Parts: sequence; C-alpha cells; structure tokens
Amino acid sequence: MTIPTIEWEGGRDGRMKIIDQTLLPGELKFIYCDDVQTVWQAIKELKVRGAPAIGIAAAMGTYVGIKGTNINDFEEFWKKLKEVTDYLRTSRPTAVNLFWALKRMEHAAQAYSHETVETIKEMLFEEALEILEEDRDSSRAIGRFGAGLIRKGDTVMTYCNAGGLATGGYGTALAVIYAAEEAGKDIKVYACETRPLLQGARLTSWELLQHGLDVTLICDNMVAHVMGEGRINLVVVGADRIAANGDAANKIGSYGLAIVAKEHGVPFYVAAPISTFDLGIPSGGNIPIEERSSHEVTTFGGQRTAPEGVKVYNPAFDVIPAHLITAIITEKGIIKKPNIRRVRRLLSQRS
Amino acid sequence: MTIPTIEWEGGRDGRMKIIDQTLLPGELKFIYCDDVQTVWQAIKELKVRGAPAIGIAAAMGTYVGIKGTNINDFEEFWKKLKEVTDYLRTSRPTAVNLFWALKRMEHAAQAYSHETVETIKEMLFEEALEILEEDRDSSRAIGRFGAGLIRKGDTVMTYCNAGGLATGGYGTALAVIYAAEEAGKDIKVYACETRPLLQGARLTSWELLQHGLDVTLICDNMVAHVMGEGRINLVVVGADRIAANGDAANKIGSYGLAIVAKEHGVPFYVAAPISTFDLGIPSGGNIPIEERSSHEVTTFGGQRTAPEGVKVYNPAFDVIPAHLITAIITEKGIIKKPNIRRVRRLLSQRS
Repeated sequence: MTIPTIEWEGGRDGRMKIIDQTLLPGELKFIYCDDVQTVWQAIKELKVRGAPAIGIAAAMGTYVGIKGTNINDFEEFWKKLKEVTDYLRTSRPTAVNLFWALKRMEHAAQAYSHETVETIKEMLFEEALEILEEDRDSSRAIGRFGAGLIRKGDTVMTYCNAGGLATGGYGTALAVIYAAEEAGKDIKVYACETRPLLQGARLTSWELLQHGLDVTLICDNMVAHVMGEGRINLVVVGADRIAANGDAANKIGSYGLAIVAKEHGVPFYVAAPISTFDLGIPSGGNIPIEERSSHEVTTFGGQRTAPEGVKVYNPAFDVIPAHLITAIITEKGIIKKPNIRRVRRLLSQRS
Repeated sequence: MTIPTIEWEGGRDGRMKIIDQTLLPGELKFIYCDDVQTVWQAIKELKVRGAPAIGIAAAMGTYVGIKGTNINDFEEFWKKLKEVTDYLRTSRPTAVNLFWALKRMEHAAQAYSHETVETIKEMLFEEALEILEEDRDSSRAIGRFGAGLIRKGDTVMTYCNAGGLATGGYGTALAVIYAAEEAGKDIKVYACETRPLLQGARLTSWELLQHGLDVTLICDNMVAHVMGEGRINLVVVGADRIAANGDAANKIGSYGLAIVAKEHGVPFYVAAPISTFDLGIPSGGNIPIEERSSHEVTTFGGQRTAPEGVKVYNPAFDVIPAHLITAIITEKGIIKKPNIRRVRRLLSQRS
C-alpha cells in the first residue's frame, strides 16, 4: 500500500492513524485513535480489519490505552494494562492475531516488570512498532514464497481482502499476487465481491487497480461457473486463524470456494503469517466463529433489501478443512498438504 | 400467490397486468401493458421474471402486440404476428419457456389460418389464457409430487425465486415447499439471497413470509458453512432450461450450490414444468447463457460499491450437470437420476 492502513504518527506522545475501510472506495478518510474505546470500536465495526491488521491495531491500541496513565507502581500498572487488553479482546472473536498481539504486549510488560513504569511504557511502544515492522517483513516473505507457485500468464482468484488494507505491509494473499506481478509473471486476477460487506468489491479491486493489475470482479455465487469455464489457474486467500492440524478459518464463503476449487482441480492456497496459527486449537471445529448483525444482510446503505420479519443467519467466517488446502504460504516457507506434523515442523524452525 | 404475478384484466379488449418485481418487497406496484414494447421491457428488466412467468408474459405479450391490428388477410396478419414474436424473442436468451410460448402462439395462429383473422385473434387470446391456466395446474402438480420427497420437520434450502412470483401459479421449487407445508410437514426454509439482484432476499423471503413459513435468509457464500453444520436436509431450485440429458440451467450460483450439496450428501432437486425442457439441446454446454450489465454488480440502489475502472463478469445463469441432480420434479412425475433415457421416457408419457 502506498498509503498505510495503519501507522503511528509522531513519537511516543503521538497517535494511531488508520484508514476507515468502511468508507472505501468512495472516500479515503482517516481515523485518529487517542483512546482505547475508539480503537475497540474501529475493530468491532471493521474500520480496521484483516487478521494481521487487527493484531497491529490491538498492539497499538494497548499502548494508546496505557500511555496517558500516571502510575508508578508495577502491580497497579499491570492491573490497568490487563483492563485495556481484556477490553480489546472482546472486540472480535475469530482472528487469533488479536489475542496473539495482546498476549505479546502483556509479555513485554512482564519482561520489564523490574524496570520503572516509564521504561515499561517505552518498551510497549517499541513492541507495538515492532509488531507492525515484523508484519511488513512477513508480507514480503509471504509474497516471495507464494510467487513461486504462480506461472507466467496465470489467472488467480482471490476472496475478501487479504491485501495491504488487511495488514501492516502489502498483504498475505495479495502479497503473493503483487510479488508475482513484480516478477513479471503477467497475471490476471478475479476478485469475489464477498458478501455481506463487499470487501472484495470495495477493497480488493480498489487495491489491485491502484497497483495497475488486471482485475475482474464477480459475485461470490459465480465462482463455480467461472472455474467450470476454465478461467482460473489457482485460488489464494488469507486466514483469520489456523488450527494445529492446518484447518483454516477465513471469511465466510472460503469453505465453499475450496470445495468448488477441488471439484475443478484448481489449487487452493492459504497465505498467512505465523501469528495466525493457534496451536492450542486442535482442529477447525474448535475455532470460535463470529456471528454478526442481521442488518449486514437485510440492508444496504441504509436501504432495506429484505422484508421485515425475516430471520437471518450471519456467520462472518467459516473453516476450510486442511484436506482442501493445497498449501499454506507463510513467511517461513510453504506447508504443502498441511497436517499436524507438517504444521509443527515449519513452526518449530528457527527463523 | 394471493396476488397473481401476471394476469389478464378484462375480456379480449382488456390488458395485461403484472407486478413490478424490481420494486419488491418495498413497494407493490402494478404495470399495465398496452403495447408489446412495455412487455419486452418488463421481461428485459426483470419486472416480470422466472422461466414460467416469462413464458406466460410472452404469450400474453403476443396477443397485446396483435390485438389492435386492423388486418383481414392472413398472410399480412402472419407477418405482423411474426414481427411481434421475433421481437419478444430478443428480450432474454436463457429461459426456454419464452421460446416455447411464442412458438405455441405461432402454431395456434397457423392452426386457424383458414378462419377469419378476427377468429384467429380470439383463438390467440384463448391460447394465452390457457398457457396461464396450464401453468397454474402444473404448479399444483409439481407441488404434490415434490412434497412426497420431504419428510416431517425437514429444513429445505432454496435459491433465487422459483415461487408464485416466477410462475402463473404458486411456483415450482416453492410449490414443493408450499405443498409440504399444507400437508402438515412443519418444515423450515433457508433462502439464499441470490446476488446480484437479490431475488432470494427480496422475493422468496417475502413470498414465504406471506405464506406464514419459517424462513431464514443467508448470503449465497454461507451455503457450505450452513450445510457443514447439518442444518439442511434437501435443496430444491427451479430451472430456466433443461437439456435432453437432464443438465439444467438456472440462476447463477445453482451449479456451485449443487457441488456443495453433493459434498455434504444433501439431496439436490430441480422443480420445473415440462415447458422448461428443450430436447433440441443435447446437453447443458449448448444452453445460451445471458450476460447482464456490469452495473448490477458494481452499484446498489444507485450507489457505487466497487471502484470505477474495474472489469466485471456477470453471467446470469449457470448449468447444473445432471449427475449433480438427485431428481427433477415435473407436473408429470419425478425423474430420478436424470439422463437422456429417463428424460425422454417421462416426456413421452401421455398426461
């Protein structure tokens, strides 16, 4: 992204700045977060979204929540910090990067518990910036590894938005696409619009057009027809949480997309940083799936599109079972035919 | 339907009256068609839609197109009639009921070519009303046959709108649901919203609620997740054209839905009247698929939802291969595991 989705403006006394993604592509507007409530709301309402970006927002949000405190005692400071992180934990349930980043901030505080609170605050600021920095590096590495899976002239399908807008860098699934394009592979992209909030239509096609890519937008229900016509060489999507056995939770619709890809012999790749793995979760069935408001399905731009009184089911994610995943692309390398053994082997490698 | 989608108001000098389905469920407004251009536009712009309803509209539209003519000579009348039917043929390409109804009107005119033009016009009026009447009877028969496939307490998934709004009677796929409900089977329904024009959200859930059914609306991309949770016992959809081998064209997304149903062992039924079969078409690959305007995908209620400059692919239909169809439900009976032999056998039965 030329314009970062999320950044810290100024020094330690500065502020967190994010793009309000709910207004894209119509309007490019920034939100400045000076308190943790604003950060919580931005995550909850998908103003900042995408698993890695949520992690970064949570880390910066933790610092936002404690930077103004006037406490000298560690125990008291720790109590305040836990208040902030526990609050941020309630913003969204599925993307594990949120919990991972908050835990990392807590560990950083504890590692410096013998120092002054002022020093701890400085360390927390540095930790949040490091999480952002690492994510940028991960993006590049995921792109490099993934580009090797793409042949010259391929047409790639992607889903939802796993791009620069979803990360601190230039994406996960879209990092693969950008890296392939930079390597001169002359690719085309099909973006699925991704109902109900149209992240594919609003965000992915916007991002890809900004990078000068050849992008065709389709509705999610057109995937099988498009694959049946032989238009797609491979699919690459992001992930919100990957279980120990390689099952991957991602935006609702990813599971169906993987089934349809398999039916047509189209390789299906998941691109995600290591921070998306949750080894404490044995398989996808244990991943908590967020349910969101019925209004996302029954209204559009304030306009009612379904009759009053209709029931709605609106799960925001689903789980792609590992057996439908050709490979998981991480910043440490590629896990082909993911299973518990192969996931553990890659994750235990030294960087 | 308590309010018919399409009817003829008054006698031979009356007019064709349709519900403008593009305004539902927000507004119930009627369109009165006094000229063939209005009929053509109503079909083209999906004000009247659904394969059987399109057939009825085309038949009535043919009569609308010739009723005011002041011609005594058959050859001249025939020329005028062909002008009208050829014009209506250009309204939409996929639903075969359109072509079937127009051919039937032409045959009716030719059968009475020895009579006065006045008599022929009367016969054409009667033929159009008969097509409507037959469709109502077909609806009931499809419902009766289909209801036998549903067990007490089942949850049925349907797609797009194959209900009273799509036919002269009370539907094809929805006729099955209505008949099961009337038989006290206490069923639940999941309706897929059906992008881009949301016929499932706007029309099907509206119709089902009017009939007092328990209906849950989901986005099309939620189908695999919902089936994976074991919520669905069977799927029933309509069809726009069925080839000689049993391959069925239906609203875009039906093919993917059938793949996902098969993956979960969920029976997949197609409900359609005999007029939907096109024995001149050997298999689904030969069915013409309508492509519609990119605006259907990139805008909503006049509001832009995708960036300017993005390419769009917007096929309005896809083809469910016969091997993914558990059975086709017609007014003459059920074709299990459809293939060319079984299709011909049922179609050649005397009613």
